[in-house]
Amino acid sequence: MLNPFFKNHGPFLISEILKILNINVVGINPDLEIIDIKDLYNSNDKDITFLHSKKYKAIAKNTKASYCITTESLKNELPKNCTPLIVENVLISVSQLTTKFYPDSINDNFDDTVIAITETKFKEKVKYGKNILVGENVSLGSNCLIGHNTIIEKNVSIGNNCSIGSNTIIRNSIINDNVKILDNCIIGKHGFGFFPRNKKNLRYPHIGIVLIEDNCEIGCGSTIDRGSMSNTVIGKNTYLDNQIHIAHNVKIGENSIIAGQVGIAGSSIIGNNVKIGGQAGISGHITIGNNVEIGGGSGVIKDIPDNAKVMGYPAKNIREFVRDNK
Amino acid sequence: MLNPFFKNHGPFLISEILKILNINVVGINPDLEIIDIKDLYNSNDKDITFLHSKKYKAIAKNTKASYCITTESLKNELPKNCTPLIVENVLISVSQLTTKFYPDSINDNFDDTVIAITETKFKEKVKYGKNILVGENVSLGSNCLIGHNTIIEKNVSIGNNCSIGSNTIIRNSIINDNVKILDNCIIGKHGFGFFPRNKKNLRYPHIGIVLIEDNCEIGCGSTIDRGSMSNTVIGKNTYLDNQIHIAHNVKIGENSIIAGQVGIAGSSIIGNNVKIGGQAGISGHITIGNNVEIGGGSGVIKDIPDNAKVMGYPAKNIREFVRDNK
Amino acid sequence: MLNPFFKNHGPFLISEILKILNINVVGINPDLEIIDIKDLYNSNDKDITFLHSKKYKAIAKNTKASYCITTESLKNELPKNCTPLIVENVLISVSQLTTKFYPDSINDNFDDTVIAITETKFKEKVKYGKNILVGENVSLGSNCLIGHNTIIEKNVSIGNNCSIGSNTIIRNSIINDNVKILDNCIIGKHGFGFFPRNKKNLRYPHIGIVLIEDNCEIGCGSTIDRGSMSNTVIGKNTYLDNQIHIAHNVKIGENSIIAGQVGIAGSSIIGNNVKIGGQAGISGHITIGNNVEIGGGSGVIKDIPDNAKVMGYPAKNIREFVRDNK
Repeated sequence: MLNPFFKNHGPFLISEILKILNINVVGINPDLEIIDIKDLYNSNDKDITFLHSKKYKAIAKNTKASYCITTESLKNELPKNCTPLIVENVLISVSQLTTKFYPDSINDNFDDTVIAITETKFKEKVKYGKNILVGENVSLGSNCLIGHNTIIEKNVSIGNNCSIGSNTIIRNSIINDNVKILDNCIIGKHGFGFFPRNKKNLRYPHIGIVLIEDNCEIGCGSTIDRGSMSNTVIGKNTYLDNQIHIAHNVKIGENSIIAGQVGIAGSSIIGNNVKIGGQAGISGHITIGNNVEIGGGSGVIKDIPDNAKVMGYPAKNIREFVRDNK
Repeated sequence: MLNPFFKNHGPFLISEILKILNINVVGINPDLEIIDIKDLYNSNDKDITFLHSKKYKAIAKNTKASYCITTESLKNELPKNCTPLIVENVLISVSQLTTKFYPDSINDNFDDTVIAITETKFKEKVKYGKNILVGENVSLGSNCLIGHNTIIEKNVSIGNNCSIGSNTIIRNSIINDNVKILDNCIIGKHGFGFFPRNKKNLRYPHIGIVLIEDNCEIGCGSTIDRGSMSNTVIGKNTYLDNQIHIAHNVKIGENSIIAGQVGIAGSSIIGNNVKIGGQAGISGHITIGNNVEIGGGSGVIKDIPDNAKVMGYPAKNIREFVRDNK
Repeated sequence: MLNPFFKNHGPFLISEILKILNINVVGINPDLEIIDIKDLYNSNDKDITFLHSKKYKAIAKNTKASYCITTESLKNELPKNCTPLIVENVLISVSQLTTKFYPDSINDNFDDTVIAITETKFKEKVKYGKNILVGENVSLGSNCLIGHNTIIEKNVSIGNNCSIGSNTIIRNSIINDNVKILDNCIIGKHGFGFFPRNKKNLRYPHIGIVLIEDNCEIGCGSTIDRGSMSNTVIGKNTYLDNQIHIAHNVKIGENSIIAGQVGIAGSSIIGNNVKIGGQAGISGHITIGNNVEIGGGSGVIKDIPDNAKVMGYPAKNIREFVRDNK
């Protein structure tokens, strides 16, 4: 369930794809159809995949994809059934091709499919405030509340017994049961992901969603970005205070408590029963274990094992922090 | 004037109360009426009170309450007139009972009492923008301005000569004269207060308000939570910059200046003439004296005496900070 | 192009000006007209200027202004053509006088000139959502998108191919081509600038604007304040993530990347190709060179030369930071 929302605009002819990649490959049947772009593990023989790092060479050996975007130096890691498509920058090419398959995932312009909730079937089903807009492909459970000026943009599924505040915007998200999202939140926008390029950066697609599990609470003014190639997840019964920023692809476990103004950078993984004090920051691409406690104001820049209590910038064992600051 | 807004749904029979606490007490007249739940000091003989820590045993000796929620080990601190009601977790029981007396203080769902300002008596009295909603039990002084899309939810009193920005939400708050609240603020929502419980946290009531005194200014995108058992207070002529978060029960003195993105955790007390630099964080339950200066980015985790200048994380005397970082 | 928007309410008679400054000067023709208040360098002979620090005495020697607000100790730095107007606090007097010339720059009350976009000429020109308001003196380029509930207040110029999100407020700003401003932003409000005074602070005018150059992106929930005596500038192709605060007079160069929750205090200058990690803070009035990298969570409190990589609080060379935190 990576992506139940974004429409795949494929299949595309391999000849079209080679044109986008700006390469020529001898002996390819130009009329072959490619259905989707996927990672090495999930690809089938009608898909195209990509290999950009030696880290993945074991998985590459077994890919079922017929074509793989890669580099000269990695092409020998691929099995016989998989034709390498050699490019200069794999990730940029993948981004360009994903944009071709999923053009709606690249730009987060305002949702022009919305209509007033009073003109939808939901007007009988939920309790709602004034001036509420609802987009296409939205489902709402029973016994929900939706506050004033809130916009449920396209591609949103909200469970039962949820309370959404006022002035909040949600898109590309699945919200489970008994969730509270307070005022002024922005849930499900694309993340801060792009390839820096002089004069004009190149945005890459965000085909993931935001998934908020049962019994969560999200404080006022928080932003939770959807994932790029995976989902952003807030686990069951996890509570977020006000003005928190959760970047793309972050996964937070269950029963965690995150105080005001905390920021979690992209792709980090937070365990269950974690407590994070106010204004703490977590770097991208790191893993925080279960039952970890992180002091307010900390800056966590490396993995933290289960059950640790840390504080400081960079964060260290709390006893060390206390000793060093006597 | 703790709580002029939340309606006390009592009195309740003591038999009902014992049922909520899930306890039995021999020899109590089940038809006795209890009017309110209050702290040890403010209770009268028709009220119920609570004692959860030895810290309060001196006050406990003199309470006028007829009943007190407490533990086996604290029950002997109570006077003869006060019957102990023994529970396992005092604060959870108090929370459950307060919720019974003040059910409106527990959930901050959107205010469904609001109507367009154009349908209220205020349309003659204040200067207002487009699409403004006003709830029940609101009073507005003379010469006020209210910006577009702003929601003055129920239980708000605004003084004279105030300017409220656009997209702002206010509830359960008293705003005195000459106050400016800029755009996108959320004032008076409940704080981040709950008892963590596996699978489903238990929110505790917030029966306090936000009080903003004369001549204050609150910057864009700020959140000020109302108090749980006391009020959140911003003293006269104190200025807050953008994106500031003030948690429940915080008290800030007069003539203070707080720069952008500062966060003050719950129940801390800040003196008069205090200056706090951008992004500084103040831990919960601490006291900052008068005339204190706190450098930008500092993390203050203990009390600071009057007239001190501090900086760093943890914050220390600024001379020490400069010396240690040469 | 400091200020294309604020209307100069002058000229004023010198006799009126002396009254505001609360001073008497013998031998001045009371009917002389003063056209504007400007800095030492830009003043002409019908203007009034100011000198408040010895730092500027070289420029003062050559000013063309006929009158200069200054102090007893600085008055001899002025040329013969320029009559000193001696006051106690130069900046407060300048503030009072600038307020006289530019009264609209002092208060950011809600814009009461706005009307629904459906009642403007823009309804044919741009693609827009629901409930959008547009103020006086606004221009919009071709091929623009404007999201729901957004308010383009007075004095805004937006270029071609721009995408403005929902719930965003913009005023006193020039937005160039191909700019994206996401949801819930506040662009162009006055900065956090005032003279602290017991009981009632004195706000000073903000006659600068916000200028956002081509190809920029501004993340959700960000605030960018306009300048006081100069402009706030975001250079070409610079990307800001969510919940960022940019204070008045800040200038950011081109091709820079600023991650979530960063704050930049007033009047600081950031170079080209700068990367700033999440939650970092930059003090006011400092200069960050080109190609600088600042680690997440850093607190930068002094100038950083070109090409440096820094981290920590206070920020230092990243090698030093790593070594000191082993």
